Amino acid sequence: MNGIDSSPIRKAFELARSIEDPINLSIGQPHFPCPANIVEAICKAAKDGKTAYTLTGGIPELKEAMTEKYKSQNQIGYAHPDRMLVTSGISSALFLLFNALVNPDDECLIVSPYFLMYPAMLKFYGAKLLTVDESFQAKDLESFKNKKIKLIIFSNPSNPTGKVLSKDQLRALANLAESTGAYLISDEIYELFDYDQAFYSIGAEYEKTITLTGFSKTYNMTGLRLATILASSEVIKALTTLQQYTVVCAPSITQWAGIEALKTDMTSYIQDYREKRDFVYESLKNHYEIAKSGGAFYFFFRVNGTDEDFVKRAVEKKLILVPGYIFTESHNYIRLSFATEWDTLRRGMLALKELAS
Amino acid sequence: MNGIDSSPIRKAFELARSIEDPINLSIGQPHFPCPANIVEAICKAAKDGKTAYTLTGGIPELKEAMTEKYKSQNQIGYAHPDRMLVTSGISSALFLLFNALVNPDDECLIVSPYFLMYPAMLKFYGAKLLTVDESFQAKDLESFKNKKIKLIIFSNPSNPTGKVLSKDQLRALANLAESTGAYLISDEIYELFDYDQAFYSIGAEYEKTITLTGFSKTYNMTGLRLATILASSEVIKALTTLQQYTVVCAPSITQWAGIEALKTDMTSYIQDYREKRDFVYESLKNHYEIAKSGGAFYFFFRVNGTDEDFVKRAVEKKLILVPGYIFTESHNYIRLSFATEWDTLRRGMLALKELAS
Repeated sequence: MNGIDSSPIRKAFELARSIEDPINLSIGQPHFPCPANIVEAICKAAKDGKTAYTLTGGIPELKEAMTEKYKSQNQIGYAHPDRMLVTSGISSALFLLFNALVNPDDECLIVSPYFLMYPAMLKFYGAKLLTVDESFQAKDLESFKNKKIKLIIFSNPSNPTGKVLSKDQLRALANLAESTGAYLISDEIYELFDYDQAFYSIGAEYEKTITLTGFSKTYNMTGLRLATILASSEVIKALTTLQQYTVVCAPSITQWAGIEALKTDMTSYIQDYREKRDFVYESLKNHYEIAKSGGAFYFFFRVNGTDEDFVKRAVEKKLILVPGYIFTESHNYIRLSFATEWDTLRRGMLALKELAS
Repeated sequence: MNGIDSSPIRKAFELARSIEDPINLSIGQPHFPCPANIVEAICKAAKDGKTAYTLTGGIPELKEAMTEKYKSQNQIGYAHPDRMLVTSGISSALFLLFNALVNPDDECLIVSPYFLMYPAMLKFYGAKLLTVDESFQAKDLESFKNKKIKLIIFSNPSNPTGKVLSKDQLRALANLAESTGAYLISDEIYELFDYDQAFYSIGAEYEKTITLTGFSKTYNMTGLRLATILASSEVIKALTTLQQYTVVCAPSITQWAGIEALKTDMTSYIQDYREKRDFVYESLKNHYEIAKSGGAFYFFFRVNGTDEDFVKRAVEKKLILVPGYIFTESHNYIRLSFATEWDTLRRGMLALKELAS
């Protein structure tokens, strides 16, 4: 059994600890703390004795709250507690889905660059990987139409690029799923971080979509392990059985905190990240071949030389980045996270300008 | 994919909700709340911002505390953080172990009666099950010596019987593991509930033992999902990789709470259960063929007629029990839990005396 190649991320983490006053632009989680009302909800749940097992599928109160969220925020009218499973984070959701759906040699289509867990976990189940670049147009999917594709997966907005797929792109993926019989998995863990438009869930128009929603990135509760899967009741039933055999249920207190999280106004946090997104783009656009990120809190851009060389040169300026090759089949990109303080970001832009010259 | 046959437990749960003032002796978790110092530790961890991912294998502070516990309480001198993995509860630990170790058609030996997840999960991985009754003597294991056994698993003290295996029995299992090359898995989630002696971990003398320790039952934190695996560093390394592909890490706040849990003096709780154990035994010994439970919080005893008939007759007296067939290959036993208030227990004994006549 081989590990996921997250070594460059671990290495970045260790570097950041070893350097005095580093400019750390490698972090894949929000820089702000978990909002105080959620922390309070955790305490309240603990004091109210919510420490026992919950139902395998999750507490009904959270499923109801998520149903309301899907209907009002995502225009998914068919959302219903029976079509929902509460899991221990998106990774746990992916594990349940891939374990239940993927057989050895199944072909699976991933939009590239991709969240590094997708290919790592799919390979673990023996899947064969197909990729399509995130800049694809509908006609680019023609070549996949005669294939027997088991599932199509993408994160939208994207980790690592910040790309928000257009409605046309999403529809093209849904059409491909429909014509090939593939499961369409839309990982929307960064949905609130869509800076230029109201985020659009493809599940709103394509009912067979398997929609993943995570709490980790939005509310800085990655360690609390909470996500939900919205899918057909048949898929949910199979996944719930599988969850019985693994973690039994998502952490009880975290589930109660999730209800409070959904009530949290994140507008000011998102506005801060929007300004940081703009600042990074304006700072770098004349120095790098860079596209304006639309969401999440990442830029993914081309550098001179290999990604690993660039990362090394950056470290000499105390700047920590992640090489792009772990997210795509190229050694010429780096991932930058702007989930950090203004001061750090300003220092980072200066260092990157120096590195470009 | 078929579910675990926990339907009688679910049924008991639903019955208890539908009956006014039920005598519920079916519950598989402590009746007391999670101790206040642990609740406080949860709040403190939340307020201290411990909401982010931890290392996959668990926070070093908890591994250190568990190392101390194994050394001082279990006489396991070789305990070390590198030989430990923090998991999302015992079920998650079993999943990791069975997924990593068991291949289809592997023969696995279970001490019977057994925790119902063992056969359910092992069958899920295609294992062939062998059983030996918990009353076995060393010579009864002779017949397994020429078999190719992949693993041996038992809970000690036992759910569902409360049996505490003797040192001779544990040594015989260790000898069988050594001679067949089987992994020996000792599930010690009820270790604190050993009423008549200092609990003995077979890991203290057989270093190849895989020792499972859970926090759920001892501190009533079943919903918080926390357990640890102590094994060779090779096994731990493989399981840690697998954990990366599933839940990523045990819930962060729960891990911090676990450190506080280890400092909690549970003596008065255990003494209360010891008295309840004695009370049940004294009440029933002249009415049923019953052995004195040594640990956990269960009695498992023979009834007239089938278990399911007996459970139905009990319900007419508002008494909720679990039929034994889900824990063993017999339809003549029921499981009684004494994890409840004195008043409920007294009413239960009266009902059981009436049912015996």
